[in-house]
Amino acid sequence: MDRSDPATEIARAAAAYSNAGRWGADDVIGTLNLLDAAKRVEGARLVRRGVAFSLSQRFDMEGPQKGWRRRTNPVHTMLDTGLDAERGVQGFPHGIGGADDVVAMPLQCSTQWDGLGHIFDHGTAYNGRRAGDVVTSLGDGVTGIETVAGLIAGRGVLLDVGRALGEDLHGTGGELPDGFAITAEHLDATIAAQGPTSAVGPGDLVVVRTGQYSRTRREGWGDYAGGAAPGLSFTTAGWLRERDIAGIATDTWGFEVRPNEFDVAFQPLHQVVIPHLGLFVGEMWAPDALAADCAADGVHEFWLTAAPIPVTGAVGAPVNPIAVK
Amino acid sequence: MDRSDPATEIARAAAAYSNAGRWGADDVIGTLNLLDAAKRVEGARLVRRGVAFSLSQRFDMEGPQKGWRRRTNPVHTMLDTGLDAERGVQGFPHGIGGADDVVAMPLQCSTQWDGLGHIFDHGTAYNGRRAGDVVTSLGDGVTGIETVAGLIAGRGVLLDVGRALGEDLHGTGGELPDGFAITAEHLDATIAAQGPTSAVGPGDLVVVRTGQYSRTRREGWGDYAGGAAPGLSFTTAGWLRERDIAGIATDTWGFEVRPNEFDVAFQPLHQVVIPHLGLFVGEMWAPDALAADCAADGVHEFWLTAAPIPVTGAVGAPVNPIAVK
Amino acid sequence: MDRSDPATEIARAAAAYSNAGRWGADDVIGTLNLLDAAKRVEGARLVRRGVAFSLSQRFDMEGPQKGWRRRTNPVHTMLDTGLDAERGVQGFPHGIGGADDVVAMPLQCSTQWDGLGHIFDHGTAYNGRRAGDVVTSLGDGVTGIETVAGLIAGRGVLLDVGRALGEDLHGTGGELPDGFAITAEHLDATIAAQGPTSAVGPGDLVVVRTGQYSRTRREGWGDYAGGAAPGLSFTTAGWLRERDIAGIATDTWGFEVRPNEFDVAFQPLHQVVIPHLGLFVGEMWAPDALAADCAADGVHEFWLTAAPIPVTGAVGAPVNPIAVK
Amino acid sequence: MDRSDPATEIARAAAAYSNAGRWGADDVIGTLNLLDAAKRVEGARLVRRGVAFSLSQRFDMEGPQKGWRRRTNPVHTMLDTGLDAERGVQGFPHGIGGADDVVAMPLQCSTQWDGLGHIFDHGTAYNGRRAGDVVTSLGDGVTGIETVAGLIAGRGVLLDVGRALGEDLHGTGGELPDGFAITAEHLDATIAAQGPTSAVGPGDLVVVRTGQYSRTRREGWGDYAGGAAPGLSFTTAGWLRERDIAGIATDTWGFEVRPNEFDVAFQPLHQVVIPHLGLFVGEMWAPDALAADCAADGVHEFWLTAAPIPVTGAVGAPVNPIAVK
Repeated sequence: MDRSDPATEIARAAAAYSNAGRWGADDVIGTLNLLDAAKRVEGARLVRRGVAFSLSQRFDMEGPQKGWRRRTNPVHTMLDTGLDAERGVQGFPHGIGGADDVVAMPLQCSTQWDGLGHIFDHGTAYNGRRAGDVVTSLGDGVTGIETVAGLIAGRGVLLDVGRALGEDLHGTGGELPDGFAITAEHLDATIAAQGPTSAVGPGDLVVVRTGQYSRTRREGWGDYAGGAAPGLSFTTAGWLRERDIAGIATDTWGFEVRPNEFDVAFQPLHQVVIPHLGLFVGEMWAPDALAADCAADGVHEFWLTAAPIPVTGAVGAPVNPIAVK
Repeated sequence: MDRSDPATEIARAAAAYSNAGRWGADDVIGTLNLLDAAKRVEGARLVRRGVAFSLSQRFDMEGPQKGWRRRTNPVHTMLDTGLDAERGVQGFPHGIGGADDVVAMPLQCSTQWDGLGHIFDHGTAYNGRRAGDVVTSLGDGVTGIETVAGLIAGRGVLLDVGRALGEDLHGTGGELPDGFAITAEHLDATIAAQGPTSAVGPGDLVVVRTGQYSRTRREGWGDYAGGAAPGLSFTTAGWLRERDIAGIATDTWGFEVRPNEFDVAFQPLHQVVIPHLGLFVGEMWAPDALAADCAADGVHEFWLTAAPIPVTGAVGAPVNPIAVK
Repeated sequence: MDRSDPATEIARAAAAYSNAGRWGADDVIGTLNLLDAAKRVEGARLVRRGVAFSLSQRFDMEGPQKGWRRRTNPVHTMLDTGLDAERGVQGFPHGIGGADDVVAMPLQCSTQWDGLGHIFDHGTAYNGRRAGDVVTSLGDGVTGIETVAGLIAGRGVLLDVGRALGEDLHGTGGELPDGFAITAEHLDATIAAQGPTSAVGPGDLVVVRTGQYSRTRREGWGDYAGGAAPGLSFTTAGWLRERDIAGIATDTWGFEVRPNEFDVAFQPLHQVVIPHLGLFVGEMWAPDALAADCAADGVHEFWLTAAPIPVTGAVGAPVNPIAVK
Repeated sequence: MDRSDPATEIARAAAAYSNAGRWGADDVIGTLNLLDAAKRVEGARLVRRGVAFSLSQRFDMEGPQKGWRRRTNPVHTMLDTGLDAERGVQGFPHGIGGADDVVAMPLQCSTQWDGLGHIFDHGTAYNGRRAGDVVTSLGDGVTGIETVAGLIAGRGVLLDVGRALGEDLHGTGGELPDGFAITAEHLDATIAAQGPTSAVGPGDLVVVRTGQYSRTRREGWGDYAGGAAPGLSFTTAGWLRERDIAGIATDTWGFEVRPNEFDVAFQPLHQVVIPHLGLFVGEMWAPDALAADCAADGVHEFWLTAAPIPVTGAVGAPVNPIAVK
C-alpha cells in the first residue's frame, strides 16, 4: 500500500471488491441482501440463556460530539415535567398529569448505522448512482435508512480484538491503543483465539470491540469524536468483501483507524466499503457488557437485532442494538 | 362503571391493580420485571421461518402530529448532501464525499414506548414516588427510558382485534370503528378466534391491532393524533394486571379508546396502568404487515425486539420494533 | 400580461428591471445600497412623539405554519423553570435559581426578511451568480443575512392599502379580500389618500398593510401560510424598481398576491425582485397597531429599525421590526 | 463586603435596591418603565451622521457555547439550497428556485437580553411572584420576553471601560483582564474620561465594553462561555439602581465579573438586579465597531434599538441591537 497515493489505492480496492450490480441495478440494500431468512433462523438458535445486552451508548448532552460538521450531542428538553404535574398547571382533569419531551440531534451523534447514502466516491453513490440523484436537501430518496427498517436481525459475532490483542491494564479485558490499525491478520487471529463460535461468514453481523470505548468510560471522551482511534485498516476491504458479511460495527467514532493510513486522507475505507461494497457500517456501539459475557462463557455468537429508527430519507440513523445469548 | 365519576373509578382501579412495591421500593422497570431470561428463550424458539417485520411507522414530516402540547412531526434536515459532494464543496481529499443529517422531534411523535415517568396520578409516579422527584426539567432522573435499554426482547403476541371483530370492507383484514372500546371480552374473543398461539401470559409483549392505522393509510391521518379512535376500554385494567404482561402496544395514537369513556376525562387508563401497574405502553405501532402474515399462517406469536433509543432521562422514546417469525 | 406565459413575462420583467452589476460585481447587499447615512438622518428626524411599535408577530407554536416544505411553527422548550428553582433541584448556591430555554424554528416561520439567497431564477442568484455557488448545505456563503446585519434602519413608510381601498366591516380599519392583486395604481392611490407623509422614494422601507393579518386575528390562521391572500401584483415590479426602495414588507405570508396571477405559477414576483432587483422583502409582519396610530394622526412615515438576527449563512432571518414616530 | 457570606450580602442588596411594587403589583416590564416616549425623542436626536452599527455577534456553530446546562451553539441547517435549485429537483414551475433554512438554538446562546423570568432569588421572581407561578414548562407566562417586544429603543451610552482603564496592547483600544471587577468608581471614571456625552441617567441603555470580546476575536473563544471574565462587581448594584437605567449590556458571557467575588457563588449580581431591580441585562454583545467610532469622534451616546425576537414565553431572547449615531 502506497501511503502517498490514496487515490490509486482507493480506486484499486473499489474495482476489486465492488458489489455494484450484484443484486441488480435497482438494489438499494447492499450487503443486507446477504442476511436472509435462513440466516435469521440460524441466529435465533443462538439464544440459549435468554440474557440480553443493549449495545447502545446513551444519547445525551454528555456525549462525545464537539461540533465537527455541526454535529452536536443530543439536546433533550422537556415539554412537561413532574413538577408541572404536581403544581397542577397542566390543565388535565381527574388528577392525571404527564411529562413529555423533545430531542434535537444529528443522526450520527451516537450509536448508529451509516446508511448507503452516507458516503460517496467521486460523486458516485452505491450501485453506480450519481450522489446528487440519491441525496438532496430532501434527504436520501433512494437508499434512505427506512429501506432497511425491518431487515437487520440475524447472527451476530463479536470480535473482541481489544481483548485478544490488547493489553488489559485497567480491568476492561484489554484495549488497543489509538492509531492501531486492525488488519485481516488481526481479525483472523482474534477469531482463532476466541474459538469456533466466532467464525465469520456470509450474512453475519460483525461487532468489533477495540476497547477505545472502555477507555473513554475511564478517562472521559477526549477526542473520541474524530480523533485518534484504533480501527480497521484500509487493507481489510478485501477481508470484508470476501467474508460477505451483512454489516460491521465498532465501538469507535469512525470504524476505521485514525489517523488514517495515508499521508493525506479522510476515511478511505469508508470510501470503498459504503459506495462500492454497499456495506452497512455501525459506529459508536457499546459492546463492553456483551464482551465481558462472551469472555466469560467463551461463546462469541448471538442473536442480534439492530433496527435503525426509520427516519425517512436519512443517511444513517440511531439504533439500540440488542444482543441475546 | 360510573361515566360521571372518573376520579372514583380511577382510584378504585389503581388500588385494585397496583404493582407498587411488588418488586421493591427501588424498582424502576415495572412490568419488565416479568420479562425474564426464560421468557426470552421461549420467545426465540418462535423464530421458525426467519421472516422479519418492522412495526415502526416512518418518522418524517408527513406524520400525524398537529401541534398538541407542542408535538410536531419530525423535522429532518441535511447537513451535507450528494449535490454538495458532486459539486466538490465539502473540502475532503481524494474524492470522498458525504451526506449527514439532523432530526428534531418529540419523543412521542411516532412509534414509541411510554416510559414510566410519562404519566402521573395526582402528582404520584410509578412506585409511589412524587412526580417532581422523578421528572424535572433535567428529565426523568429515576425511571428514564435508558433504564430499560436492554430489556425489551421476548415473546410477542398479536391480538388482531380489528380482524377478529371488525369488518373487512377495504381489504385490510378488518378495522374497528373510531370510538370502539375494546373490553376484556373482546380481547378474550380475539384470542379464541385466533387460536392457541395467541395465548397471553406473564412476561408477554402484546401487540393490539385495531385497524385504525390501516384506515389512515387509505384515508390520510385525519385526527389520528388525539382524535377519536378505537382502543382499550378503561375496564381492561384488571385484564392487563391479571395477565401480568410485560408490555402492550397498539396501532393508535393513544392506546385507549377515544373519546374516553367518562363524560369528562383524559386518558384514564393511562392514569392507572403507567403509575400504578408500571406497565410499558407502546403507541403508534404499525402492525399491518405482521398481521397479514399472522392471518396467513395462523401463527400469532413471534420473537419481538422493541428496544427504545436510550435518550438519557427520556419519559418515552422512539423504537423500531422488529418481529421475527 | 399573458396569464398563460409566466416564463416570458418573468424574463421580460427581469431584463427590464435588473439591478445586476449596478453596485459592482461583488455586491452582496442589493437595494440596501440605497439606504445610506443621509437616509438614516432623515429617518431619525421622524421621531417626534417617541411612541414605539413592534411590527413582529409572536414566535410560537400557535403560528400559521402547517408543514409546507418542512416549515413548522417555532418549538420553544425549557431547559430550566421556576418550578425547578423552587424545588431546589438546580444545584446552585445561595438561593439563586434560573430558567433557560431553547427554540427550534424555520427562519421563515414568522416575521422575517428574505435574504438575497432565498430565491433563484433558473439557477441564478442575485448579481448573476450561480445558485449553487451561493447556497450549499453549509448555507449562503455569499449573501448570508449576516451581511446586512447592521444596515436596515431608516425611513419607513406605511402604505395601508387595506384601509385605503378595503372595506372596514370589522373595526380593523379595512381589509383587502384574499386574491386581491395590489397594482401600481393601487399603491399610488393609497399614497394619494394618505397624503404627503407617505411619499415613497429611494432608500425607503415600505410596509404594506393588506389587512389579512387583522383577519387572522379575528378568524384564526386558516390558510395564511401559503393560501389565498391579498398581495402585490406581478405588475408592480416596475413600480418597485423605479421607486428605488430599499425594502418592502407585508402583513401576509408571501408578499405577492395568491393565487398568483399566472395560470400555473409560484411566486413569480419573487423570481423577479429578489434575484434581479436584489430587493429585500419582508413577510408576516404585524403592522396593525402602527397602522391605527398612523390613521389617527395622519402621519405615515416613521423611523424603522428592522435588524435580522444574523444567523451566519441564513437565507432569511427572524426580525422584530421597531417603528418609532 | 464579606466574601464568605454571599447570602447576607445578597439579601442586603436586594432589600436596599428593590423595585418590587414600584410600578404596581401587576408590572411585568421592570426598568423598561423608565424608558419613556420623551427618552425616545431624546435618543433619536442623537442620530447626526446616520452611521449604523450592529452590536450582535454572529449566530452559528462557531460560537462559544460548550454545553453548560445544555446550551449549544446554534445549529443552522438548510431545507433547500441553490444546488437543489440548479439541479431542478424542487418541483417548482417556470424556473423559480429557492433556499430555506432552520435553526435550533438556546435563546441564551449568543447576543441576547435576559428576560425578567431568567433569574430567581430563593424561589422568587421579579415583583415578588413565586418562580413557579411565573415560569413552568410552558414558558414564562407572566414576564415572557414578548411583553417587551416593542419597548427597547432609546438613548444608548457606551461605557468603554476596556479603553478607559485597560491597556491597549493589541490595537483593540484596550481590554480589561479576566477577573477584573468593574466597580462604581470604575464606571464613574470611565464616564469622566469619555466626557459629557457619556452621562448616564434614568431610562438610558448602557453598553459596557470590557474588551474581552476583542480578545476572543484574536485568541479564540477559550472559556468565554462561563469562564473567567472581566465584568461588573457585585458592589455596582446600588449604582445601577440609583442611575435608574433601563437596561445594561456587556460584551461578556455573563455581565458580572467571573470568578464571582464571593468564595462560593454563582452570578450573585444577577440574583439582585433581575428579580429585585427588574433590570434588563444584555450579554454577549459585540460593541467593538461602535466603540472604535465613539473613540474616534468622542461621542459616546447614540440611538439604540435592541428589540428581542418575541418568542412567546421566553425567559430571554436573541437580539440584533442597532446603534445609530
